[in-house]
Amino acid sequence: MARPSVLPSQSVDFPRWYQDVVAKAELADNGPVRGTMVIRPYGYAIWERLQAEVDDRIKAAGARNAYFPLLIPESYLRREAEHVAGFSPELAVVTHAGGKELEVPAVVRPTSETVIGEYMAKWVQSHRDLPLLLNQWANVVRWELRPRLFLRTTEFLWQEGHTAHATEEEATAYARRILREVYADVMTEVLAIPVVPGRKTRRERFAGAVATLTCEAMMRDGKALQMGTSHELGQNFSRAFGIDFLGADGERRLAWTTSWGSSTRMVGGLVMSHGDDAGLRLPPRLAPVQAVVLVARAGEGVDRAARTVADDLRAHGVRVELDDRTDVPFGRRAVDWELKGVPVRVDLGPRDVAAGRVAVVRRVPGSATLVPPAAVAEETRRALEEDQARLLTEARARLAERTADVATPDEALAAARDGWARVEWARLGPEGEARLAEEGVTVRCLVRPDGGLPGSDDEPGALAVVGRAY
Amino acid sequence: MARPSVLPSQSVDFPRWYQDVVAKAELADNGPVRGTMVIRPYGYAIWERLQAEVDDRIKAAGARNAYFPLLIPESYLRREAEHVAGFSPELAVVTHAGGKELEVPAVVRPTSETVIGEYMAKWVQSHRDLPLLLNQWANVVRWELRPRLFLRTTEFLWQEGHTAHATEEEATAYARRILREVYADVMTEVLAIPVVPGRKTRRERFAGAVATLTCEAMMRDGKALQMGTSHELGQNFSRAFGIDFLGADGERRLAWTTSWGSSTRMVGGLVMSHGDDAGLRLPPRLAPVQAVVLVARAGEGVDRAARTVADDLRAHGVRVELDDRTDVPFGRRAVDWELKGVPVRVDLGPRDVAAGRVAVVRRVPGSATLVPPAAVAEETRRALEEDQARLLTEARARLAERTADVATPDEALAAARDGWARVEWARLGPEGEARLAEEGVTVRCLVRPDGGLPGSDDEPGALAVVGRAY
Repeated sequence: MARPSVLPSQSVDFPRWYQDVVAKAELADNGPVRGTMVIRPYGYAIWERLQAEVDDRIKAAGARNAYFPLLIPESYLRREAEHVAGFSPELAVVTHAGGKELEVPAVVRPTSETVIGEYMAKWVQSHRDLPLLLNQWANVVRWELRPRLFLRTTEFLWQEGHTAHATEEEATAYARRILREVYADVMTEVLAIPVVPGRKTRRERFAGAVATLTCEAMMRDGKALQMGTSHELGQNFSRAFGIDFLGADGERRLAWTTSWGSSTRMVGGLVMSHGDDAGLRLPPRLAPVQAVVLVARAGEGVDRAARTVADDLRAHGVRVELDDRTDVPFGRRAVDWELKGVPVRVDLGPRDVAAGRVAVVRRVPGSATLVPPAAVAEETRRALEEDQARLLTEARARLAERTADVATPDEALAAARDGWARVEWARLGPEGEARLAEEGVTVRCLVRPDGGLPGSDDEPGALAVVGRAY
Repeated sequence: MARPSVLPSQSVDFPRWYQDVVAKAELADNGPVRGTMVIRPYGYAIWERLQAEVDDRIKAAGARNAYFPLLIPESYLRREAEHVAGFSPELAVVTHAGGKELEVPAVVRPTSETVIGEYMAKWVQSHRDLPLLLNQWANVVRWELRPRLFLRTTEFLWQEGHTAHATEEEATAYARRILREVYADVMTEVLAIPVVPGRKTRRERFAGAVATLTCEAMMRDGKALQMGTSHELGQNFSRAFGIDFLGADGERRLAWTTSWGSSTRMVGGLVMSHGDDAGLRLPPRLAPVQAVVLVARAGEGVDRAARTVADDLRAHGVRVELDDRTDVPFGRRAVDWELKGVPVRVDLGPRDVAAGRVAVVRRVPGSATLVPPAAVAEETRRALEEDQARLLTEARARLAERTADVATPDEALAAARDGWARVEWARLGPEGEARLAEEGVTVRCLVRPDGGLPGSDDEPGALAVVGRAY
């Protein structure tokens, strides 16, 4: 089929492709205040499904949801100086409310770390109150000068987990559990994005953390996107906020805390991991619409046949939509569903109905098969399963192909032109890291040669994964 | 069992009872900024379940979720003058961000009406784009001088629906459908709160609305709580925001819009509708924990017996928790679960295990039955069903008993001392309404004698439901 080119090619202008596909697939629009975003129904349906998958896993890890206020007294952000340093220029400040100037200005939360710290200190008294495992789904605001929809917006939606534990071992294990069982699992199994779990270098880690763990994903332009992070905070935050408890032995001790987050940024990662020149390609497990039954033209028996196929798909547990807007040209609608990345399209018109077969068109491999209407549901279910796996396999192959094992900073820079490099951290070191940074290339994370998480910043044998990043 | 009095009696000090039960059942705490609220895990679990019930029904009514920005340019709120008048003193304003003063201050949304209006105008072009049925789950901020947790907080969580339709009939029908199929249904069937659906008088309705429909509930102190509202906005908003469309006939027309909302306030209504002197009483369908297996004392075989009962309950689809903290006195834990309103408590200790029977204690009727462990799940399921119905029946009886049919404003005032009055609207009228208002008594809504919704502000035969309100 001749394809009207509705998007610029990824290979010609990737940033422009991204901007256009987000707009044309109706994922999001720019908001009226600089850097803010309107998430449109189709984009929000993707986020809702993603949120449910993350939430299920957070609950399975024993954390409970709560909600802390949007507005935080400015004074709170001065308590943990190191923490503030990273945020001040990003803050939005409420100075007037209730028709007059506030005595103490309130900050719109850039994270809830400080306010949650205050309440944890109040709620944790005895070892019986531990572990305290909290999570919050909320909007946060960090003023952005160079916003990009989903990737970097002044306001974004996220979850932030905050936990307190009696021992260091328990806190460390929990931070790692969240990285593995929540983030890496959702990204691999649901988003079909193969992530590299690793440990941030001292230079890249969260202010105040003892260790920052991350899931890094490679986009189709070879750049990295940090998709979720989990921090071991040691006793730094419990010291700053006074989170201590009476042990079973009658001794008062500081708790060990963690924090971890993932956000609407993941939607951007989804777009840039799987999308192609024709638009989005959604992993079937996440797709709000898994199959669309597209009536090409009205005609004898077409309506009833379309409805039967749609009902059958629904009965087989497929999230299906019926598109019978035959007053809009078929080609335009087909291109639109392609743009939206719906995994399966079932095309049918009068001739198909007469011939007793319809076309099942798959977005991921781009293939079309003719099958009898009664076989559509079975065919679709098989396609959805296959294409979920296919997207992951494809992304894994790209990641492997575009990651070079190198020996020097210069070679790392060369590899980072359109992919990643892996280099021994002992050879690169903080100095090599600083040199790369001058060229806009960063150490995304440190990993063990077997893919495991290094236990310290200078673990012998650790490899640095290096690349350009969003 | 002798009851340690952990709460003041409702009949002695209802406001104090409310404040204490919210704190002691660990539903919420005051936030650090005046009037804000920290929703604790137990309170949030209630909200999450309530939210899911509302969301399911909103989706069944065809609306789709989206997300609009928190920050709105101050100029937006000047477009619909009548609308602003109601809000200005309540606004929180961001004047500084990104380290400097903003050229245009941004308001923290008190509602998203204006920003959604702007985008609707952009998205609605043709009759094919209608109806446009949007909903948003979000936090909003309205500065409160006399805050009360859940009932009136500076920040609260809500959903706001905004829809645009091609005809007045369709818009009117949709606003009514939401009131009935979403709000009244959730409140009656899930919250077990019998609401009175009605129409607000001109004095009480939302600025800019043609009609405001409401669900009013009676609390245990006889006062009214507005639990959800649905507005017919006519063409007022589409005129202000330019929401127009090209009809099938080629004519350009203004759309007809609606908006509707419900909030965390419903949690306050839940507390005040069913709670008693011993604490909350949660309707089983909503309760995050439907049954708690309470190990009274450790002993031979107790742990295993408790675990077996809990597993059996879980296998029967009951949301169950196991409380085996035998280092905390049994009485204290029993009182605590009672405070939290958990519908069923299964008590067991060494003697029970030896005797082959455990106590099933029901929160709503306050009854206890001894049954063999193997019969607990069946007994619990029956109890949960019965007690859901019992709470509704009880609340219905109270509503009927404390609503007096009266003929004069004076009689209405007398009835409003500890309940509601119903009086012919034709007899009361705007003048009578103004007189009542001087005494702090308002017309909660107008209803038809058969309970239906009046079609206009002055429908002959309509009754005014009158009372004091939160």
